[in-house]
Amino acid sequence: MTIQSVLMDGQWRASAATEFFQSENPRTQEALPELYPISPWDEVDQALDAADRAFQTVRGWPGKVFAGFLEAYADAIETRASDLIHLAHLETGLPVQPRLQDAELPRTINQLRQAASAAADGSWAQPTIDTKSNIRAVLGPVGPTAVFGPNNFPFAFNSIAGGDFAAAVAAGNPVIAKGHSSHPATTRVFGEAAQQAAEATGMPPGFVQLLYRIRHEDGERLVSDPRLGACGYTGGRSTGLVLKAAADKVGKPIYLELSSINPVVFLPGAVRQKSAELAEQFAGSCLMGAGQFCTSPGLVLMVAGPETEALIAEIVKRVKSAPVGTLLGRGVATHLRSSVEKLIIAGAECLCGGKVGGGTGYSYQNTVLRASGRQFLDSPEALQVEAFGNASLLVVVRDLDELGMVLSKLEGNLTGTIYSATDDSDSAAYDLIAPVLRQKVGRLLNDRMPTGVAVVPSMNHGGPFPATGHPGFTAVGIPASMRRFGMLQCYDNVRPHRLPESLMDKNPSGAMWRLVDGQWTQGDVVPAS
Amino acid sequence: MTIQSVLMDGQWRASAATEFFQSENPRTQEALPELYPISPWDEVDQALDAADRAFQTVRGWPGKVFAGFLEAYADAIETRASDLIHLAHLETGLPVQPRLQDAELPRTINQLRQAASAAADGSWAQPTIDTKSNIRAVLGPVGPTAVFGPNNFPFAFNSIAGGDFAAAVAAGNPVIAKGHSSHPATTRVFGEAAQQAAEATGMPPGFVQLLYRIRHEDGERLVSDPRLGACGYTGGRSTGLVLKAAADKVGKPIYLELSSINPVVFLPGAVRQKSAELAEQFAGSCLMGAGQFCTSPGLVLMVAGPETEALIAEIVKRVKSAPVGTLLGRGVATHLRSSVEKLIIAGAECLCGGKVGGGTGYSYQNTVLRASGRQFLDSPEALQVEAFGNASLLVVVRDLDELGMVLSKLEGNLTGTIYSATDDSDSAAYDLIAPVLRQKVGRLLNDRMPTGVAVVPSMNHGGPFPATGHPGFTAVGIPASMRRFGMLQCYDNVRPHRLPESLMDKNPSGAMWRLVDGQWTQGDVVPAS
Repeated sequence: MTIQSVLMDGQWRASAATEFFQSENPRTQEALPELYPISPWDEVDQALDAADRAFQTVRGWPGKVFAGFLEAYADAIETRASDLIHLAHLETGLPVQPRLQDAELPRTINQLRQAASAAADGSWAQPTIDTKSNIRAVLGPVGPTAVFGPNNFPFAFNSIAGGDFAAAVAAGNPVIAKGHSSHPATTRVFGEAAQQAAEATGMPPGFVQLLYRIRHEDGERLVSDPRLGACGYTGGRSTGLVLKAAADKVGKPIYLELSSINPVVFLPGAVRQKSAELAEQFAGSCLMGAGQFCTSPGLVLMVAGPETEALIAEIVKRVKSAPVGTLLGRGVATHLRSSVEKLIIAGAECLCGGKVGGGTGYSYQNTVLRASGRQFLDSPEALQVEAFGNASLLVVVRDLDELGMVLSKLEGNLTGTIYSATDDSDSAAYDLIAPVLRQKVGRLLNDRMPTGVAVVPSMNHGGPFPATGHPGFTAVGIPASMRRFGMLQCYDNVRPHRLPESLMDKNPSGAMWRLVDGQWTQGDVVPAS
Repeated sequence: MTIQSVLMDGQWRASAATEFFQSENPRTQEALPELYPISPWDEVDQALDAADRAFQTVRGWPGKVFAGFLEAYADAIETRASDLIHLAHLETGLPVQPRLQDAELPRTINQLRQAASAAADGSWAQPTIDTKSNIRAVLGPVGPTAVFGPNNFPFAFNSIAGGDFAAAVAAGNPVIAKGHSSHPATTRVFGEAAQQAAEATGMPPGFVQLLYRIRHEDGERLVSDPRLGACGYTGGRSTGLVLKAAADKVGKPIYLELSSINPVVFLPGAVRQKSAELAEQFAGSCLMGAGQFCTSPGLVLMVAGPETEALIAEIVKRVKSAPVGTLLGRGVATHLRSSVEKLIIAGAECLCGGKVGGGTGYSYQNTVLRASGRQFLDSPEALQVEAFGNASLLVVVRDLDELGMVLSKLEGNLTGTIYSATDDSDSAAYDLIAPVLRQKVGRLLNDRMPTGVAVVPSMNHGGPFPATGHPGFTAVGIPASMRRFGMLQCYDNVRPHRLPESLMDKNPSGAMWRLVDGQWTQGDVVPAS
């Protein structure tokens, strides 16, 4: 068995680790052959030093340099596509087609290219100039950024290739990537491509580093270290909250994407009008990728009545007859079983599924649970446990008033969805509940399922706690996601030649958007007379 | 003695308090006659309920309604100007002219009017529309906001009239103001004007509420309460950190402005060229308002040499001979004495001052301390104690290398200033140290003192921890300060008539700036074909 190296300070180095781990093929439940190091604190410490040195070198560099690196990296990933797809399939069990090859890898490359374009353009940093007072401000890089990737997107959220990585780098920051233990080989190939691109484009050693795994207590030290600028974390709630507490204590920005059950409301008119469509769309969304999406619909709310009973029967029929997907690994399988058990203990009735197995390797039967609005109101916390995977809870409320009460008890979520009739029959109900749901979620949808997160400037993949750590930021959508990794830097009476290019009178590219004397413009600054 | 009422749920009500406090005239050290309640938790709880109800009423209201309230409030303050100036002078000892009458009150009214204008315009919320995907996003109000005001700006940072209040209201949020105990009568008059304006403009009860004081543990409950959206706090570091911990734990945004010693660097060429000017500007800034500004220059860095010794002698001469101002109260006086003592224990030498007294009422001699760069590097934490008031520490470094090391040990600050020669003689030194200082401060200045905070869009009155809780936000400068009190609200496939006005195809005012398909525009949206 080979022991894999870590990427530190511009080199692949043998780790000083004394502990190692292997990933597993979730379809065969067999360990994969390579050993990956659990880096000791000394190694994290050295990575921080190297990142600090790299930051001192690159701060002040114009955005087009980071753009050049990101473009070269996107190209390098394209040449490694078959390796990446092969390894990710081995390590995660996610299907090669359409998921890995046709959806996730193209999206990942597209994200890196969008980030490159935003870095080169510079508008993301919202340069703001007031000519009368001669005060100017722009977002500058916050400093070395730690990125913790999750298990469920081996490409698009990978610690060294995904959205947080792209955003942090495009904002001008070195990244220390902490890979997810479930797909280290996939991550290694990204690391190789990243290092190749970094060398080709003249980035300093330590600009991009990769550690596969660190101890929990070292994670807390990392996110609160004075050399670190910020952290992006996507993953489970309990670990995320521990890291948040450590970072908060010393005032380090930490951006978390934790958990979400993504409530979906089927209003009565919609149930009456298009029951079959609702069942089909819900079952498709809930079972896609075996439900292992941050935006998977884990909670469905419906008003009691015979049409709702028919819809539920149709949902159960579809979910039950659908093939059972492979789960990402042992951890997901264990967590899903225990979460469903918790929901049942809290009073939910199991309409179908509820048992381990049914598919290849790690799997759990497609599961639909049911509870009443009354039950939900009696145990709102217990019935909001996230069952990450192919399971969902249907809550049948007595009437619209009870629906409003249930919504008001929701925790923060990434998304909330309302299906309503195409005519006016649900209008009053919509107006009653939408404002309540609006305040609980980052993205409000109408008439379509929340899975599928477009990488566009208006996207909000965020939401109130505990979906994330702050309701003002998004993890997806360029350029907004980049602003998380900036600090506001104001220049007061600073001599013109000392200003960053983005704040000089002349628009550096002729295309950068800047807020000059309260007006957005791509023009040059005409100094106040 | 009269017991003052609290402003709750649209009415001035007798408080249920059993504990009371009085403010004091710092010039006479005599208690002022009115008794103010220390509100029990029940009252805070009722205020939260009322704010929650008010929020349910106003969410979705267009910005011009909040603008109308803010305009009416600014007018009402103008009619109460003489009361406000009289009371603030009594309670804080700050001079009527020019400070209270000619500077702070006009600034406060101007801030409210700027906020009104920004609320009416709507561009602050950065509406973002992508026509191809039909996804749209905008900052919406985060919810009821608690504002804790500081002691040193009875008007411009007042909990019910200052910058945080204006920003939170302009973003559409009800405010629960927690006044500062040192100037309750001033705050009461603002509360009366606010309530009058709220009634005149049809704001719901509970939109603006005022509690004069609450217990510390109730502050923690308030900032972490599920009904609260966010908190703005300006004040001492220890209390601020306790509130931050409580809010962080439940993921509630809290924006803190805590402490700052505002390093000023006099580079050798500047010392050689314009020593008298530097001494004059520094002494003026350091003693202005008895040094009780967040941006007061509390740390000056100079390179050793005979010209520096001459400058220090000139500084001491000027500071010593300047009149000693009255401090805001007993607390400030006690804190200043103990902070200077801590600096002396850490090794600083007292060049002048260092004793209680010298002015009317609460006062402390104008104080200049001195330490070497070596001493600073040996005790960087102890020599960064904030001596809030008319005291400053001069640190004389051996050379530019040591200067760089000292700067690298600085905590986060609101401002950092570099004075350099008008010719090129300091250019190399500037290029060496500016990047280090840049990363430590929110606002970098050249050739002028940091006191004086312009209310312009490019202002950053913020900075890395512990100056504030997050390096991305500013407490001053509209519209940026408003964005702290927004949550990102995305609309995905939402039917056109259900969108907020700011995201509809038609630009609601024809003047609102929106990011449509990546371009800032004031035009209407032309839907994708």
